[in-house]
Amino acid sequence: MAGRRQLRITIWNEHVHELRDDSVKRIYPDGMHRPIADGIRRELGADVTIGVASLDEHEHGLTEEVLAQTDVLTWWGHAAHDKVDDAIVERVHRRVLDGMGIVVLHSGHHSKIFRRLMGTSCNLRWRSDPGGEREVVWTLNPAHPIAAGLPQPIVIPHQEMYGEFFDIPAPDELVFVSSYEGGEVFRSGCCFQRGAGRIFYFGPGDQEFPVYHQPEVQRVIANGVAWCAGAAPSNNESVRSGGNAPRGWYLHTTVT
Amino acid sequence: MAGRRQLRITIWNEHVHELRDDSVKRIYPDGMHRPIADGIRRELGADVTIGVASLDEHEHGLTEEVLAQTDVLTWWGHAAHDKVDDAIVERVHRRVLDGMGIVVLHSGHHSKIFRRLMGTSCNLRWRSDPGGEREVVWTLNPAHPIAAGLPQPIVIPHQEMYGEFFDIPAPDELVFVSSYEGGEVFRSGCCFQRGAGRIFYFGPGDQEFPVYHQPEVQRVIANGVAWCAGAAPSNNESVRSGGNAPRGWYLHTTVT
Amino acid sequence: MAGRRQLRITIWNEHVHELRDDSVKRIYPDGMHRPIADGIRRELGADVTIGVASLDEHEHGLTEEVLAQTDVLTWWGHAAHDKVDDAIVERVHRRVLDGMGIVVLHSGHHSKIFRRLMGTSCNLRWRSDPGGEREVVWTLNPAHPIAAGLPQPIVIPHQEMYGEFFDIPAPDELVFVSSYEGGEVFRSGCCFQRGAGRIFYFGPGDQEFPVYHQPEVQRVIANGVAWCAGAAPSNNESVRSGGNAPRGWYLHTTVT
Amino acid sequence: MAGRRQLRITIWNEHVHELRDDSVKRIYPDGMHRPIADGIRRELGADVTIGVASLDEHEHGLTEEVLAQTDVLTWWGHAAHDKVDDAIVERVHRRVLDGMGIVVLHSGHHSKIFRRLMGTSCNLRWRSDPGGEREVVWTLNPAHPIAAGLPQPIVIPHQEMYGEFFDIPAPDELVFVSSYEGGEVFRSGCCFQRGAGRIFYFGPGDQEFPVYHQPEVQRVIANGVAWCAGAAPSNNESVRSGGNAPRGWYLHTTVT
Repeated sequence: MAGRRQLRITIWNEHVHELRDDSVKRIYPDGMHRPIADGIRRELGADVTIGVASLDEHEHGLTEEVLAQTDVLTWWGHAAHDKVDDAIVERVHRRVLDGMGIVVLHSGHHSKIFRRLMGTSCNLRWRSDPGGEREVVWTLNPAHPIAAGLPQPIVIPHQEMYGEFFDIPAPDELVFVSSYEGGEVFRSGCCFQRGAGRIFYFGPGDQEFPVYHQPEVQRVIANGVAWCAGAAPSNNESVRSGGNAPRGWYLHTTVT
Repeated sequence: MAGRRQLRITIWNEHVHELRDDSVKRIYPDGMHRPIADGIRRELGADVTIGVASLDEHEHGLTEEVLAQTDVLTWWGHAAHDKVDDAIVERVHRRVLDGMGIVVLHSGHHSKIFRRLMGTSCNLRWRSDPGGEREVVWTLNPAHPIAAGLPQPIVIPHQEMYGEFFDIPAPDELVFVSSYEGGEVFRSGCCFQRGAGRIFYFGPGDQEFPVYHQPEVQRVIANGVAWCAGAAPSNNESVRSGGNAPRGWYLHTTVT
Repeated sequence: MAGRRQLRITIWNEHVHELRDDSVKRIYPDGMHRPIADGIRRELGADVTIGVASLDEHEHGLTEEVLAQTDVLTWWGHAAHDKVDDAIVERVHRRVLDGMGIVVLHSGHHSKIFRRLMGTSCNLRWRSDPGGEREVVWTLNPAHPIAAGLPQPIVIPHQEMYGEFFDIPAPDELVFVSSYEGGEVFRSGCCFQRGAGRIFYFGPGDQEFPVYHQPEVQRVIANGVAWCAGAAPSNNESVRSGGNAPRGWYLHTTVT
Repeated sequence: MAGRRQLRITIWNEHVHELRDDSVKRIYPDGMHRPIADGIRRELGADVTIGVASLDEHEHGLTEEVLAQTDVLTWWGHAAHDKVDDAIVERVHRRVLDGMGIVVLHSGHHSKIFRRLMGTSCNLRWRSDPGGEREVVWTLNPAHPIAAGLPQPIVIPHQEMYGEFFDIPAPDELVFVSSYEGGEVFRSGCCFQRGAGRIFYFGPGDQEFPVYHQPEVQRVIANGVAWCAGAAPSNNESVRSGGNAPRGWYLHTTVT
């Protein structure tokens, strides 16, 4: 069972706003990746190894070696989507199809990797009023592992508004839909399977509000990481090396 | 093309509240079925035949003959779900699987026929405050035929609140999600395929508010009827008479 | 994590063919439930408690107490679907919506409980030639936990043919599709979520062939049981006791 | 209703095999686009305008003007996927999200545009034995408009084998699954919604076999074109020009 083995997580954070914007620095003095990592560690416990990578590192910290050693990657980006190298995006994309999970957070909806995986524009409505507005996150799939141990609903006091139409493929599983004080709604918890990899998109988390310090939000992210790690290794190995299959090729297949 | 032929619609209305509650009588003096029928006629035009049936009629007005002549049935019920005869429910159920469309409205979520088709409890949260509250209906699938010609969003000034968790199977297509002033959300426009029949559930429409007089709401219902009528006749005819299939039975199948 | 706790499984077997048909008795002298139980125990190990229940027992062995102590139920029936008491079917149905998993096997497609959960006829094509025919079970979702550790494809030398059109709702996840020597295809591994419960339908397993002795088939069933057990306890508890929700009811919700 | 207006179709054919391979020239002396166009015209009748475009033309015949005047594009390519200009692929992609339908045929599964829309590798198993093998196309959704008027199943006497695992997102609607003499299965009729556009992938149609001359196959393609044209114009217009939405922006929205 997946739960028994060591889970290797890489938290990718663009890490731009925290260094340049005082308002963000006050909320996330150690970077947004810190409370994200703390929450995952608290929720998933001792069986977790967490690495952090960011834009400024060599190959954005996402070398072949790092990715090969990553079971689930989390992704936060906003101000510098276009600074992410296309070759690294292709590498991450390939690794997801090959079985690595990815949790895409908030403004990561417009990241190159998310748009590449979705095949759509990933555009949405948004509103960033001073002080934000209340977001209420509703569970539509109350027995989904990502909703485990969470209140129905989760109340986030101050958030940026993200609203429909959100231009994504219909999610394979829709876990959360949020409402906002302004009356908009948003598919804020979306599960996708692509190749052998699982993808979880989670809406909350603007840099101007302390959302990633909120325990419920941390629990959602931890649950999302665990869910992404729940994909099994693909049982379709042989097709990787080309797809040409002589008649009856499978008649001597055995359980390994 | 389905659009060319005469479309035969039966509007089923429980028709209890309009006869006994003064508050409802004022809003719907001719019964709720009247504005529903008017809206369908206005939107779908001359190619439509509309019949009305209600609880008090013989077999609730849903005889074998009526159903055989119905392409799409609409269903509104609330106070008397348990008064609907099980045998009639089975008859409607069979007819839906056989290709008749059904548009289930508002409190019809708890009707026997909807629960029979869904296989779940169809429970939900609700709140019926005096004066109701604003419901905002958002399109999540903006090119869906049921959203055609509608504003994004539709604003319904006064409505009963219906909220998640709504215990239905994940819809085959999710067209609308509503928010309410109280902050709840609800999957208010849901498409399902069952057997050869199409099902559209639409949330708005409490008896205490003039929702079915609102042109946008009428358009949604008309679009829903047209969508339900867009199912093709099943191409799997032969399986009806038992399913035993000798080896190679299909090798002489031809286009008809 | 679900994987840590004791998993309580009840194997329900109609147990009619094994007692009356010599051909079946030879293949399953201890009843079909025996190799099913053996396979689950071998695959899921020490953390599993397995009970067996059958048609002839008081309340078919499915008392409130037994169901309350069951995390996942497996269901095999064929000759006596109509002998299963409607009240017991309702009880199992309620328990599934409440979170119990159910694995429905082969001819269980026509059981009352499966048709109740699906809301459709669950009809299909079939052919039972002497000696059967080869079924090849293909994985369409190679990283799904139910496909874990299985060959692509699984070859079952002798089986009854089950073919499309299989009148079920579109599965929430389609894991396996089978082909047969006669050329038919069948959605043989289907996942559904209903309420808080998970449902897995698996096609292989006619009483006239030793399918449940095949290790790969046993592994599928064990994986299916584990997957069904992976649903989380519903986080939507409060809606059970009616759904009336005063404005702002959720504003003091906290993580438990 | 969509059915009333003139339907503008562009048939894109790589048109390489027909010019260079004698075996293909014999089957498709006027190019594969000819029987595809003939079938669409026969099935959809007078309300259709058909254009043809191919790789060798300026901008592959897919200028902004041509695409702006195209409701549904069909795509066949194989030998020269990598010769298709990335800028043209982006243009087609944008136009699909904007509402143009696209029917992708057979080896088009590996085209840049299909992989771009899917976000996955679109790899599959295949076998191209001399003489091919029989493909049997089964309808899993017998009331789907794309299955209208077709036999259950469709028998294609000689075809290349395409088999699972086919690395695509789970289709929004799965219409056909094929089996082959060699025992493989394949999701051969897949519907997707992306942005405001509809996508239909259809498996049959290798250049070495006269598949596109077969009337049933022509009908599937015509049905697929009609289905793609059935998307409504998006009702989410305003989001195109950025997504910033001031609080209450929608409160004066009216039906147009």
